[in-house]
Amino acid sequence: MNADRPAVTVLGLGSMGSALAAALLDRGHPTTVWNRSAHKAEVLVGKGASPAGTAGEAVAASPLVVACVLDYDVLRAVLDPVAGSLAGRTLVNLTSGSPEQARETAEWARSHGAGYLDGAIMTTPPGVGSPEMMFLYSGPEPVFETWRPTLAALGDPLHLGGDPGMASLYDAALLGLMWATLTGWLHGTALVGAEGTEATAFTPIAVRWLTAVAGFMTTYASQVDAGRYPGDDATVDVQIAAIDHLLHAAGARGLDNALPELLKDAMVRARAAGHGRDSYASVIEVLRNPSPGA
Amino acid sequence: MNADRPAVTVLGLGSMGSALAAALLDRGHPTTVWNRSAHKAEVLVGKGASPAGTAGEAVAASPLVVACVLDYDVLRAVLDPVAGSLAGRTLVNLTSGSPEQARETAEWARSHGAGYLDGAIMTTPPGVGSPEMMFLYSGPEPVFETWRPTLAALGDPLHLGGDPGMASLYDAALLGLMWATLTGWLHGTALVGAEGTEATAFTPIAVRWLTAVAGFMTTYASQVDAGRYPGDDATVDVQIAAIDHLLHAAGARGLDNALPELLKDAMVRARAAGHGRDSYASVIEVLRNPSPGA
Repeated sequence: MNADRPAVTVLGLGSMGSALAAALLDRGHPTTVWNRSAHKAEVLVGKGASPAGTAGEAVAASPLVVACVLDYDVLRAVLDPVAGSLAGRTLVNLTSGSPEQARETAEWARSHGAGYLDGAIMTTPPGVGSPEMMFLYSGPEPVFETWRPTLAALGDPLHLGGDPGMASLYDAALLGLMWATLTGWLHGTALVGAEGTEATAFTPIAVRWLTAVAGFMTTYASQVDAGRYPGDDATVDVQIAAIDHLLHAAGARGLDNALPELLKDAMVRARAAGHGRDSYASVIEVLRNPSPGA
Repeated sequence: MNADRPAVTVLGLGSMGSALAAALLDRGHPTTVWNRSAHKAEVLVGKGASPAGTAGEAVAASPLVVACVLDYDVLRAVLDPVAGSLAGRTLVNLTSGSPEQARETAEWARSHGAGYLDGAIMTTPPGVGSPEMMFLYSGPEPVFETWRPTLAALGDPLHLGGDPGMASLYDAALLGLMWATLTGWLHGTALVGAEGTEATAFTPIAVRWLTAVAGFMTTYASQVDAGRYPGDDATVDVQIAAIDHLLHAAGARGLDNALPELLKDAMVRARAAGHGRDSYASVIEVLRNPSPGA
C-alpha cells in the first residue's frame, strides 16, 4: 500500500471487476472489495484487498467507488439501500448499459450528493492495467480531472465530455466496429482457409491491411463531417464490381455469404441514392436512412 | 532513366495503371505505356514514359510486362493477339479477378513460354509507390525473386506462394475485411453523430480501438487453427448481451440496424451450435456452415 494513493472500493467481482481491483492493488491503492457472493473476494484478499461485509461498509471505506456489475438492475439493487453513504464520494460506474441508463444514474447520484462518472472499458479483463488500453469516461470534467491519476491504474483514461451518456454511446459504437471487423476477418479467414491457408498465416497480413483501412477511415471522416464524399481513391461503383469477386469466391467454397451480401446491398442502395461515383464514406447516408421495410 | 533499372511495360492506363507507371518512372525504370485509348498516355509521356503504338510493340519493349486492365475479358482481348511476343518475358497481372481466372491465365502464359505472377494491389492509386502499401503476389518463387526489386517500386511486394490463385483469394478476403470494417465504423460514426459528435472526433478513437481489435484477431487466429475457442477473455454469451445495447441505442436513433442484426444472428447461431461459452472466434464455424435456407 502507498500512503499517497487514494483508497478505492470496487463493487462487483466478476472477471472484469476482479481485474479492476487487481490493477488498483498493483498500483498500491488501498482497495476494498465487495461482491454479492463473498467467495469471489478471496483471491483479491490474498493480494492485499480488504473485504467488506456489506455494500454499505464497502462504500463507506473509500472516497472513490468503482462499480462493475452485471447490469443496471443489479447496480440499483446494490446501491439504492446504501445511497445515503454516497454523499461526498464519487461513483465511477463501469457497468454496461445504455446512454439513457447512464444519464438516469448520473441524476440519481447527483440527487444523493455524489460525484458521478460513467465509463466504458475498451479491453478484456487480461488487458486491464495496461496503459495502452482505453477506458472511456463521461461526466463532469472536474470530477474526471480529480480522479484521472487513480483511474490511470486501470488503463488510459479518456474523457468524452460532460454528458454522462457519451461513454455508453461510444462503447456501443466501438463494439459494433469490433464485431463487424472480427466477422469480416473470420469470413476472410474461412475463405483463405478453404484453400489450406492457416489463420496464423493470413492474420498478420490482415492486421497490416487494417492499418491501411484505418487510413481510409481517417480520410473519410473529414468527408462525413463535410457531407461530401469525393470518390478520388475508389468509388462505390468500383467497390460494387469488386465485391462480386468475393461473393463468387466465397460462394464457390461453401461459405455463408450473408455478411458480404449485406455489404453489397448497402453499396447498391448508396448507388441508387446517387453516390455511385462517390467514395465508400457515402454509405453512411444509407445507414442513417433505413430502407422501407428494413 | 537509370541503366541498372530494368525496362517495364505497363498495359492499361486507368487511374491504377497510370499510378503504377508513374511509380516506375519515379524509380528510374525505362517505362513503356500502352492503353486502348491512346490519350490516357499523354500525362505519363510528359513524365518520361515511352508510348507504344500497339499492344504488341508495348510487350516487345520490355522483359517485364505489367497488366492492369478492367477485367479478364479485356486482358485476354489485349494479350491473345500478341501472345507470341510474350515468350521469354514475364507477365505480372494486377487485373482484379477470381483465383480460377488467375490460374487459367497462369496456364495460358506458361503455354506461351512466359513467366507469370498474379498480383493484388492493397491500396488506392494515391498509395501506389509507398513502401508501406502491400502488393500481394502469387506464382513461382524464382520468378518473384527475379522481379522483386523492380516490383518494390510499386509498394512492398509480398509473396503468397506458388499457386497463382492465392493473390486473388487474399484480395477478396482482405477487401471483405475492409468493407465490413468500414461499414461498422460508418454505423458507429452515425450513432455518435446522432448525439452531435463529429466523425473527426470519433475516428481517432475508433482507429486506436482497431489496434486492440487486431490484438484479439491475433489471439483468435491461433484458436481458429487449433479448432478450439476458449472464452477466457469474453464469451459469445457476453457479446450477445452487449450487442443488444447497440441495437437499442442505434434503433432509438433511427439508424439502419441490418448490420448489427446480422452480427447478432451469427452469434446466436454460434451459441446454438454450442459455442456460448467460447470466444468470438467460434463464429467462424457458423460462417463455414451456412444456415439452411441462407
